[in-house]
Amino acid sequence: MSSQAEHPALMIPGPIEFDDAVLQSMGHFSQSHVGPPFCNTFGEALTMFRKLLQTTDPASQPFIVSGSGTLGWDFVAANLVEPGDHVLVLHTGYFADSFADCFETYGVKVTQLKAPIGDRPQLPEVEKALKENKYKIITVTHVDTSTGVLSEVQKLSELVHRVSPETLIVDDAVCAVGSEEICFDDWGLDVVLTASQKGIGCPPGLCLLMCSGRAMESFKNRKTPPSSYFASMKNWLPIMQNYEAKKPSYFATPPTQLINALHTTLTQILSRPLSERFAAHREASQRAKQAVASMGLKQLAEKPENQANGMTAIYLPNDLKAPEVLPNILKRGVIFAGGLHREIAPKYIRLGHMGVSVTDPKRRDVDKAIEALREGLGEVGYKIP
Amino acid sequence: MSSQAEHPALMIPGPIEFDDAVLQSMGHFSQSHVGPPFCNTFGEALTMFRKLLQTTDPASQPFIVSGSGTLGWDFVAANLVEPGDHVLVLHTGYFADSFADCFETYGVKVTQLKAPIGDRPQLPEVEKALKENKYKIITVTHVDTSTGVLSEVQKLSELVHRVSPETLIVDDAVCAVGSEEICFDDWGLDVVLTASQKGIGCPPGLCLLMCSGRAMESFKNRKTPPSSYFASMKNWLPIMQNYEAKKPSYFATPPTQLINALHTTLTQILSRPLSERFAAHREASQRAKQAVASMGLKQLAEKPENQANGMTAIYLPNDLKAPEVLPNILKRGVIFAGGLHREIAPKYIRLGHMGVSVTDPKRRDVDKAIEALREGLGEVGYKIP
Repeated sequence: MSSQAEHPALMIPGPIEFDDAVLQSMGHFSQSHVGPPFCNTFGEALTMFRKLLQTTDPASQPFIVSGSGTLGWDFVAANLVEPGDHVLVLHTGYFADSFADCFETYGVKVTQLKAPIGDRPQLPEVEKALKENKYKIITVTHVDTSTGVLSEVQKLSELVHRVSPETLIVDDAVCAVGSEEICFDDWGLDVVLTASQKGIGCPPGLCLLMCSGRAMESFKNRKTPPSSYFASMKNWLPIMQNYEAKKPSYFATPPTQLINALHTTLTQILSRPLSERFAAHREASQRAKQAVASMGLKQLAEKPENQANGMTAIYLPNDLKAPEVLPNILKRGVIFAGGLHREIAPKYIRLGHMGVSVTDPKRRDVDKAIEALREGLGEVGYKIP
Repeated sequence: MSSQAEHPALMIPGPIEFDDAVLQSMGHFSQSHVGPPFCNTFGEALTMFRKLLQTTDPASQPFIVSGSGTLGWDFVAANLVEPGDHVLVLHTGYFADSFADCFETYGVKVTQLKAPIGDRPQLPEVEKALKENKYKIITVTHVDTSTGVLSEVQKLSELVHRVSPETLIVDDAVCAVGSEEICFDDWGLDVVLTASQKGIGCPPGLCLLMCSGRAMESFKNRKTPPSSYFASMKNWLPIMQNYEAKKPSYFATPPTQLINALHTTLTQILSRPLSERFAAHREASQRAKQAVASMGLKQLAEKPENQANGMTAIYLPNDLKAPEVLPNILKRGVIFAGGLHREIAPKYIRLGHMGVSVTDPKRRDVDKAIEALREGLGEVGYKIP
């Protein structure tokens, strides 16, 4: 099929490479957004999203809406807090700054707890912060796409439940869902927000959220109405409930083709044990990280326990800058991403290893990426120590 | 290609039937959202959107964002007005109520000018309203998808410029762009907002806006920051400007596949004179409306000057209800939509005639829809007078 013609392997931390069947679902013939076939597809996709997050609590509420991960922040800020509320944002890079901006847009007061680049706020610091102030929400970036730093979400959640049990735990898992294990119920999370184009393996254009029963109660007990219209849970809740019951419902036209593609990828993902999927991501990640180390390169996330399984952020050696290296990698048929962290953007590059590039044994994407990196650096005169 | 396998013709007022090449573009291999090929595609799509709206004023500013038409309302309400401002909403059906809700969400004061079902507010009433109060914005639903009513946008804009020249003119053209002529500059419009899945002929998942230089000035002169994050023009303006200059830029990941499909459909649309496109829509609309009349059926929009060219809303005869008729039409391979106007929803059905169903001479979609309606009504015992 022409759509999958020879093309460079897209090994950035999202959008990732998509499976052929997923891309074919994007070209599904046009369907009514309120007709029985599409209601069935959307309903099943919502239910499969629960399974991906391993939540069986019927009070959990999924939302799948046209948008991007960024829109997920608006959902949180416009529905789960009210103007004047305080939130604690754990900072591991670019995305915490933006989430904080989003909260402030909605009149919410933000305290950021910042870690040095490549690290994450430590639990004792978080404990101290939670004891000093009462926060309606704490947010954590599960995997910071700008640094490749993995947060310890389960332990963090245990800490919050112990020290500040009324605080809602919001996991910004855009670069984690599908590549990192998430046990929504068992870990006691209140929101997991994500986007389609990373570990889920569906083209970009969808914002996905899972909210706990506790988060939905907090929403229902608001004193003020939601402060967004398109990102209002009031507007979307009946729509999601109806679609999951396979009944038509209308607030805004859903992106029918993307929902078809989401259904295809979630069906693929759930056809195998999730544990195998996460093991495949850990294995590929180790392979990439060992190769990077063997080239004498350093990761932004130096400590092994801080390292994400779906991506690797790599410092360039010898004061090289990303624009000097990326074209050499592309010449070898692989696309890496440049840096994103504002303070050091040109000094590093990012490799994504998620989805079919990792789980499809027919693909050699990760090995090809490692070779392209080695040869690309060689071309600019870098000698492996 | 399997994606276009035998399927019922989707003749609702959006999503519409899509061209094969557009659906194939949805399955494009994965591309980096900041790589040169995609920047080029997105940049061209932004420029082509200007052409579709016939604006050559360099001060006009397009926005194309993951979302739906509904998100366009948030863009207007969160950026072009401030809390406490007054707006005048012309009401022709379902969508004005929702747009008003959206404004109120952002603390904006709304006055609605309502017309009876099937009609539109008359110019003298609008003039009177504009003279009684100072409005920051007036909104008009170009084609009300709930009633098939066409507004007289050009004359309305002339009136506003004459009577209340500081008022911004916002055209909710979700069901009009691509099927009704719009001359953004010549008519003096300030915002045209739309979605991808109707006259533009691209699958759902995109919100598109064109803002005049005057609208952008008004935005820049706000006293308060935008009251949305995802729908903030402050956040999106540099992104749109960079992409149109074919430079990478990041705020939120754009829906790469949908932008590819948008590029394909806009290329197709602009490969022929726009006047031919609008003539084809007028011709198909007349054919549908004459057939409806010949069956003894009434439209919601009784007056010919009120009738949209991209859709027809049809009262059912003999107290029939939509659920009794739609399945009979579907059996004949055509999907009509049910009613949407809250007061009379079950009493009418809606036929869309937009895009390739109208412009592709190889398709018989409109004729097939007319036959299916005639036979479907016959099956429930309706005798054509």
